[in-house]
Amino acid sequence: MRIGTLTIVGVGLIGGSIGLAARRRGLAGRVIGVGRQPATLERARQLGAIDEACLDLADAVRRADVAVFCTPVTLIAEQVRAAAPGCAAGTLLTDAGSTKGSIVRALDGHLPPGVSFVGSHPLAGSEKRGPEHADADLFQGRVTVVTPAPGTDRAAVERTVAFWQALDSRVLLMGPEEHDRALAMTSHLPHLVASALAGILPPELRELTASGFRDTTRVAAGDPSLWTGIFLQNRAALIDSLGILQEQVNQFQTALQAGDPAAIDALLARGKRSRDALGN
Amino acid sequence: MRIGTLTIVGVGLIGGSIGLAARRRGLAGRVIGVGRQPATLERARQLGAIDEACLDLADAVRRADVAVFCTPVTLIAEQVRAAAPGCAAGTLLTDAGSTKGSIVRALDGHLPPGVSFVGSHPLAGSEKRGPEHADADLFQGRVTVVTPAPGTDRAAVERTVAFWQALDSRVLLMGPEEHDRALAMTSHLPHLVASALAGILPPELRELTASGFRDTTRVAAGDPSLWTGIFLQNRAALIDSLGILQEQVNQFQTALQAGDPAAIDALLARGKRSRDALGN
Repeated sequence: MRIGTLTIVGVGLIGGSIGLAARRRGLAGRVIGVGRQPATLERARQLGAIDEACLDLADAVRRADVAVFCTPVTLIAEQVRAAAPGCAAGTLLTDAGSTKGSIVRALDGHLPPGVSFVGSHPLAGSEKRGPEHADADLFQGRVTVVTPAPGTDRAAVERTVAFWQALDSRVLLMGPEEHDRALAMTSHLPHLVASALAGILPPELRELTASGFRDTTRVAAGDPSLWTGIFLQNRAALIDSLGILQEQVNQFQTALQAGDPAAIDALLARGKRSRDALGN
Repeated sequence: MRIGTLTIVGVGLIGGSIGLAARRRGLAGRVIGVGRQPATLERARQLGAIDEACLDLADAVRRADVAVFCTPVTLIAEQVRAAAPGCAAGTLLTDAGSTKGSIVRALDGHLPPGVSFVGSHPLAGSEKRGPEHADADLFQGRVTVVTPAPGTDRAAVERTVAFWQALDSRVLLMGPEEHDRALAMTSHLPHLVASALAGILPPELRELTASGFRDTTRVAAGDPSLWTGIFLQNRAALIDSLGILQEQVNQFQTALQAGDPAAIDALLARGKRSRDALGN
């Protein structure tokens, strides 16, 4: 794959990493970064994540062959709808948002002829923010889920797959709703639980935490406003996943109240088998 | 501090690290490792964690000036009671167990004159096991909680504090029950939650997990039988902590059901503030 101009909207950790990865691999002739804050754009340029900084969303997207929206999930659909009318036929628009159903639904049937939006979600990142934490190999060996709507142009889907593969990501195709149900369990629920656990820690017990508490709550350091948007866009699936977790926690509670070693051991063994299957 | 003979009962990750740390720092003239499996003891000897391997608990503890019990919490009290009668007056017995109340209560008033048991809990370790994962600097800068009973000999408490400090640990003194209430929140509850979360992950979603799920569930890889013992010895405090977590999770659930962004943001912000205060 070879892209003339790649526009990245939002040059934080993910957008910056896309820029670094694309430039390192010679994927695009030119990488334009779009943002609201000149200082962030300038840092991204100095770090080598983009060739050119641009404050005008519509202008930068109009010049793109491929544009990737790496902004908060609550902004993606409206930004795409604002920028798409200026695009030439054949322009591919995609994103890196953690939810897909709401975004794909909001855009389906609302783009100019020949302009395609194909939802994407690279399963990479961390609780850190900003282009300083960008990494040219962030996507290497990681999964990116690409989520076409039923009517999405096939060639556009194939280009989206090729784009992420060119960044060394492994691509899975999935429906947007299927993606959201899966990620409720694998990402949004762990975030909720980590945040709840961090939230109840009395300050005077901080010095009694070790790596167990720190690992279990690490993602709670993520940006609350970003995650509020994710939770709300996926709230039905998140509520369902939370119900499943609560049933499992209730089993622990019952076993503890009964002082039943075999039941506790069986629950812990189930958790261990599943965790061991993930590797590090 | 200088110890003639240091005996370590159980030479896994913790016991092996105590041996490595003590030998590296010249803390003891001789380090004896006790275990049931000759192969593990031999590995610990080859790794430099002990000078001498011994299969006879009572014999190895009788020869000790200081003995540290690094066995599962369900075994510690009975092993101490079995070994103590052979000890000379002035022998210090301590442990590295994750629970303290049950162990300290079981030993209080049951030791020969002049032999002291002082409970300890170094907040270090991981889900890994075995002397292969031992580390001479495991305790460096980490907290060890020392939990004397009201009647424990003061000189013995001071020696216990000096022992952990000599391994470069930072020591906090706390009552055994106070320790258990704190650790229910900072260690045992996170373990329960991580295990429950890992346990409900459907196998087909494994490839859709990223660092968030992996961090949040990492401790679930710990040994189920060890943790069953810990949960049962601290079950009252763990049930209390679980109740506090469930209230916090219920607030998330209510906010999600109401689709209330301000409430979700406030809950996530509370978690972030607390997690940020812990550092990495």
